[in-house]
Amino acid sequence: MEKIRIGIYGYGNLGKGVEIAVKSNPDMELKGIFTRRDPSSLKTVYSDSPVFNVVDAPKMKEEIDVMILCGGSATDLPVQGPEVCSMFNTVDSFDTHAKVPEYFASMDEAAKKANTLALISCGWDPGLFSVNRALFDAILPNGENYVFYGRGLSQGHSDAIRRLNGVKNAVQYTVPYDEAVRKVRNGENPEFSSVREVMWRECFVVLEDGADAEKVEKDIKEMPNYFEPYNTVVHFISEAELKENHFGMPHGGFVLRSGKTSENVNQVAEFSLKLDSNPEFTASVLVAYARAIAKMRKQGTTGAVTVLDVPVSLLSNKSRDELLKNIL
Amino acid sequence: MEKIRIGIYGYGNLGKGVEIAVKSNPDMELKGIFTRRDPSSLKTVYSDSPVFNVVDAPKMKEEIDVMILCGGSATDLPVQGPEVCSMFNTVDSFDTHAKVPEYFASMDEAAKKANTLALISCGWDPGLFSVNRALFDAILPNGENYVFYGRGLSQGHSDAIRRLNGVKNAVQYTVPYDEAVRKVRNGENPEFSSVREVMWRECFVVLEDGADAEKVEKDIKEMPNYFEPYNTVVHFISEAELKENHFGMPHGGFVLRSGKTSENVNQVAEFSLKLDSNPEFTASVLVAYARAIAKMRKQGTTGAVTVLDVPVSLLSNKSRDELLKNIL
Repeated sequence: MEKIRIGIYGYGNLGKGVEIAVKSNPDMELKGIFTRRDPSSLKTVYSDSPVFNVVDAPKMKEEIDVMILCGGSATDLPVQGPEVCSMFNTVDSFDTHAKVPEYFASMDEAAKKANTLALISCGWDPGLFSVNRALFDAILPNGENYVFYGRGLSQGHSDAIRRLNGVKNAVQYTVPYDEAVRKVRNGENPEFSSVREVMWRECFVVLEDGADAEKVEKDIKEMPNYFEPYNTVVHFISEAELKENHFGMPHGGFVLRSGKTSENVNQVAEFSLKLDSNPEFTASVLVAYARAIAKMRKQGTTGAVTVLDVPVSLLSNKSRDELLKNIL
Repeated sequence: MEKIRIGIYGYGNLGKGVEIAVKSNPDMELKGIFTRRDPSSLKTVYSDSPVFNVVDAPKMKEEIDVMILCGGSATDLPVQGPEVCSMFNTVDSFDTHAKVPEYFASMDEAAKKANTLALISCGWDPGLFSVNRALFDAILPNGENYVFYGRGLSQGHSDAIRRLNGVKNAVQYTVPYDEAVRKVRNGENPEFSSVREVMWRECFVVLEDGADAEKVEKDIKEMPNYFEPYNTVVHFISEAELKENHFGMPHGGFVLRSGKTSENVNQVAEFSLKLDSNPEFTASVLVAYARAIAKMRKQGTTGAVTVLDVPVSLLSNKSRDELLKNIL
């Protein structure tokens, strides 16, 4: 069987996770890691992973079935996404929920023009949580979806802080309010007037020498979409303390729907994740969806799609007969 | 917008659930309940639900977009399925896991010949649990799926007992072993050598007058696929006791995958259900998938498909824009 040829565009924690995940899937092959840095400076997880500069990507159009975009949503993807999907089928993890329609439109236009297929906003949220939100909403129309995150480190939000002037390094944890979780699991169907009542955000920030702490704190707390809608607490710590206490990247959370099918008949559906490593799990999701994108493109689909458009059979490397016999 | 026109074929607990679920979905319309009994004898949930005898179904080919088959898997569906999908697009809840490939083949042949689309084995298991088994397997290739049921009443298994000679009425509860659940949730990745170690089956049976209790108990315990692979306990009770203590139809369970993405990095994904009424929830799933089947047939798909082939966007009555904005 011909292997699915994968490229990695951008090499941070997520890119490393994809490198590891591709190795775990025998029907896939890593054709290249593309970086804006000097390729020889990159320390890859496996010594045999081929590394190129991004400027060489266009030459490899015929050698890669799906390019997995591993840049951040704040500034990388809005530019890189449409550029790269003009050459390759892509999978990305664009996670600024409020800007999804706009990003979808720009990816759809670029991909349709280039006859490629672009899966946007993959991962676990947006991603698997979105699939469950849509599923639960369709199955239990008289109900309420609840989403809880953490306690866990959010890559996207940490990344957004790191890009601020005056910030050397940072991590951000999303923390659910215990009382809110208790009410939901009890089936009390509480009404939360905003996300602010459901969870809060805790930031640990290392400043650049001479940076203005007060200004950085204000810049974080007022950042639209990322922090403005939440209660946010900012701690300033040393680089040593950050390395010592905040090196893991755990995360998790759940989507729960509590709905009634008739009077006094309550039904609860829940999808939950407990992750030791958020980037490695997200990467595993991207890689499984890359398999689906390779198949869907072969079937003729082009333009932008989301996880909601992908049937789960395409994620699998099992044949229809195996799925019918052992999975269904 | 034109409504999706639904038919219900067979009117037991599941059929009633479908009748209720269709009412909860404003984009759907119930065109007929089809029964083998005298239509005038049927007590429907809503007085305005139209009832017909099954012999009149063929005349209504043009009036129904999707027929939801609500018969049992043991004897009804293997016969009814291919017959009805020769006239209508169908959704069914065939749940004899071991016979799925055979049933799929017979439905695929009949539906392709008739240019219809047949979704088989929908509900929650097979159904939503299957979707999650396939998803988890694709995302965490180095891991193990665990499935637990109950404590809950299994319609399929109760039905199978009721069909035995000498049985007047019966209910069956599926009960997980506490110790097994504990190990799995702890991430201990226990190896169970058979389903017998994971859960057991408890049956409450009302005998016909003069029936041979010993023979009935033997017939239950030795029933292939349904009871033979499990530890089964059979209690004989009176009809009055059954009505008093076993009228609810609660169920639930979970699919959990614990997998490693690299050394010492464990990831746990879980999909769980807590249901006050198994038939009403199963019916809600069938109805949401009926919406998808109506759309897929319009797109040109024919033959047999499973829940693994259906993208979640098709289950929804929301537009693409709404899904992008509010669900993704």
